Amino acid sequence: MNFNAVTDYLQGLQNRIVEALELVDGKNFMHDSWQRPEGGGGASCVLEEGNVLERGGVNFSHVMGDKLPPSASAGRPELAGRSFEATGLSLVLHPRNPYAPTAHMNVRFFVAHPPKKQELSAKYQGASQGADDAATRHTIEGRCGAAEESNAGAALETQPIWWFGGGMDLTPYYGFEEDAVHFHRTCRDALAAFDDSLYPRFKKCCDEYFYLKHRKEPRGVGGIFFDDFNELGFEQSFAVMRAVGDAFLNAYLPILQRRKDTPYSEYERDFQAYRRGRYVEFNLVYDRGTLFGLQSGGRTESILMSLPPIVKWRYDWKPATGSPEAKLYSDFLIDRDWLSNL
Amino acid sequence: MNFNAVTDYLQGLQNRIVEALELVDGKNFMHDSWQRPEGGGGASCVLEEGNVLERGGVNFSHVMGDKLPPSASAGRPELAGRSFEATGLSLVLHPRNPYAPTAHMNVRFFVAHPPKKQELSAKYQGASQGADDAATRHTIEGRCGAAEESNAGAALETQPIWWFGGGMDLTPYYGFEEDAVHFHRTCRDALAAFDDSLYPRFKKCCDEYFYLKHRKEPRGVGGIFFDDFNELGFEQSFAVMRAVGDAFLNAYLPILQRRKDTPYSEYERDFQAYRRGRYVEFNLVYDRGTLFGLQSGGRTESILMSLPPIVKWRYDWKPATGSPEAKLYSDFLIDRDWLSNL
Repeated sequence: MNFNAVTDYLQGLQNRIVEALELVDGKNFMHDSWQRPEGGGGASCVLEEGNVLERGGVNFSHVMGDKLPPSASAGRPELAGRSFEATGLSLVLHPRNPYAPTAHMNVRFFVAHPPKKQELSAKYQGASQGADDAATRHTIEGRCGAAEESNAGAALETQPIWWFGGGMDLTPYYGFEEDAVHFHRTCRDALAAFDDSLYPRFKKCCDEYFYLKHRKEPRGVGGIFFDDFNELGFEQSFAVMRAVGDAFLNAYLPILQRRKDTPYSEYERDFQAYRRGRYVEFNLVYDRGTLFGLQSGGRTESILMSLPPIVKWRYDWKPATGSPEAKLYSDFLIDRDWLSNL
Repeated sequence: MNFNAVTDYLQGLQNRIVEALELVDGKNFMHDSWQRPEGGGGASCVLEEGNVLERGGVNFSHVMGDKLPPSASAGRPELAGRSFEATGLSLVLHPRNPYAPTAHMNVRFFVAHPPKKQELSAKYQGASQGADDAATRHTIEGRCGAAEESNAGAALETQPIWWFGGGMDLTPYYGFEEDAVHFHRTCRDALAAFDDSLYPRFKKCCDEYFYLKHRKEPRGVGGIFFDDFNELGFEQSFAVMRAVGDAFLNAYLPILQRRKDTPYSEYERDFQAYRRGRYVEFNLVYDRGTLFGLQSGGRTESILMSLPPIVKWRYDWKPATGSPEAKLYSDFLIDRDWLSNL
C-alpha cells in the first residue's frame, strides 16, 4: 500500500481536469488551499460565473483524524472510531446552459489504522462503542460495489484496513439519449480492462446510491459508483480508481461541448433551477461524502461547493404532458440499461 | 387525553392564521387536502408568488403508523417502533422583502401506543430492536424542553405515552433589534401564565436546536422550542401548546407589517437568497420535523414547503466589514438574551 502514490495521482488528476475545463470555459478557476486543524488539508479549485460553468468545484483533500466517522465505511461499522487517513478528489460541475447536464465525479482512498492496544483491551471488556447517531445514518447503505471477500477478515484488529471508492454520474435537465449512452459507454470501456463484471456491478450501485427515496426518483441517468473496494489487491484496485478518474474528461467534455451553446430561454433556465432542487435534496439528505465531510470537521465551503448556484422550489409542480420537461421524467429518470444494444 | 380536542384546535388555528395572512398579502392561499396510504392525511395551505409572501405554507396533518420513527421522540429511543398517532400544524413563511424575516412555527401532539403483547415478549427474549440508522440520527438531540420527570416511567410498557412539542423562531436577513425583542417578548408573555421558568427553558432549547453545527451559526434570532412535553398533565400541557400556537400571529404579523414595504434593491435580494441557503441546509441536514416527515412516508411536497422559493450558493462569501450584512452576523446570529432589560 502506497499512500503517496495515491495523493500524487489525485493531485495530478485535479490539475488535468482543471486545465481542460479552463480551456472549455475561457475563464480560470480560483485556487484555494486550506489546512484542517485536526490534521491535513486540501486544495479547492472553484469557478463561479464562468462562461460555460455557472458554478464548478474540483476539490482535492488529504485528511486524517482520530476517529473514523461511521459514514466513511458503508458496510463496516466495526471500523468506526479508528484513526484514519483519507484522500480524495471530488468534483461537481453545474453548467449555465440548461441543456448541459450537471456532472459529478469522485475518487477516494481510505485507510483505517488498527486500534491501539488499550482500545482493543477495553473493547474485550465489553466497553460500548457508542457511535454517534448522526454519524451512523448511512451505514445502512451496504458495501456498494464491494465483493463479498475483503481484507477485513482475520487480520481486522491488527492490520490497517484500506479501500478505494468513487464513481461518476450525470444529471441532465433535458435528456439526450446520445449523452447518456456516451457517458455510460465511456464508463464501461474504462472498466473493461479489468473485468467485464465491474461495469454492470458499479452501474447498479450507482442507480441504488443516487436515488431520492422521498421523491421515488433517480438523481439523473446514473453512471458508476463503487465503495469499500480492495478485492483486487492494492495495485489493481488503485488501477481501477485511476481508470475511473482518467475516464471523466472523456465521459463529460464531449457532452458539455455539444450542449453548452444550445439556445435557451428563461423557461428552460427556470426548469433547470427547479430540478437543481433535487440535487440539493440528495446531497444534504443522503450523500455519504457530504455527511462524512461535515461530520469529520471538514471544510464546509469545500464540501458544499457541490450545491448549485441558483435553485428554486415550488409546490407540487408537474411538467405538462408531452413536454420536453415531462420527457426527462418518463424517459431518463428511470431504471434503464443505456448500453443494451451496444 | 383527548386527541380530537387537539386536532380541532389545530385546524381552527390553521384557519385563523391563513385568514390573517391573506388579509396582509391580498392574495389567497391554495388549499390542498391529501390522504396518506398508511393512514391519515392532512391539509396544506400554500401561497406562492404573493404580494408579500414569496412562498408560504401552513400545513395541518394527522397521521398514524405502525412504527414510530425514532426521530419523533428525541430522548426516548425505547419508544421507537411503537404504533403511533401524531397531529401537528407547521408553517414557514418566506416574505419577498429581504427586510422582512422568515418565520417558522410548529405545534404538535404525539401518542405512542403500548406495544402488543407478543412484541413485549419478543423483547424480553432479547430480540434486537434493530433501529433504522437513518431514522436514529436525531435521537441524540436530547429531550429538549422536557423536565426530568415524565409519564414514561413505570407504566412505560402498558400505557400510551403522549407528549406535546412545538415552538417558533425568526430568521432575519437584515436584523432589527425591535423585531427580535418583540418576537421574544410575545413568546415570553404567552408562557408567563404557566410558569416563569418556561420561557428561558424553551428559549435555550430553541437556541440549541436551530443551530447549524457545520457553520457554527445559529439559524436566526431564535424564539422558543419544546418537545416531549407532558409534565403539567394533559390539560395544562395542551394549554401550553395552545398558548404557543395562539401567540404566533401576535409575534410575527407586526414585524411583517412594518418591513414588507421597505424599499430594497437587487443587492439585498441577492443577500436574502444567499442566506436562505442556510435555511435549506438546516432543514435538510438537521431538522427533526423534516426528517420525521420524510421517514414516516410523509407527503414530500408538504414537508418541503418549508424550503425557500429562490436560493443561491456561492463559494466562501463574506460580508464587507461594517456593512449591514456583516451586522447580521455580528449582532444577531449570536447567543443573546433579547429581553435582558425588559
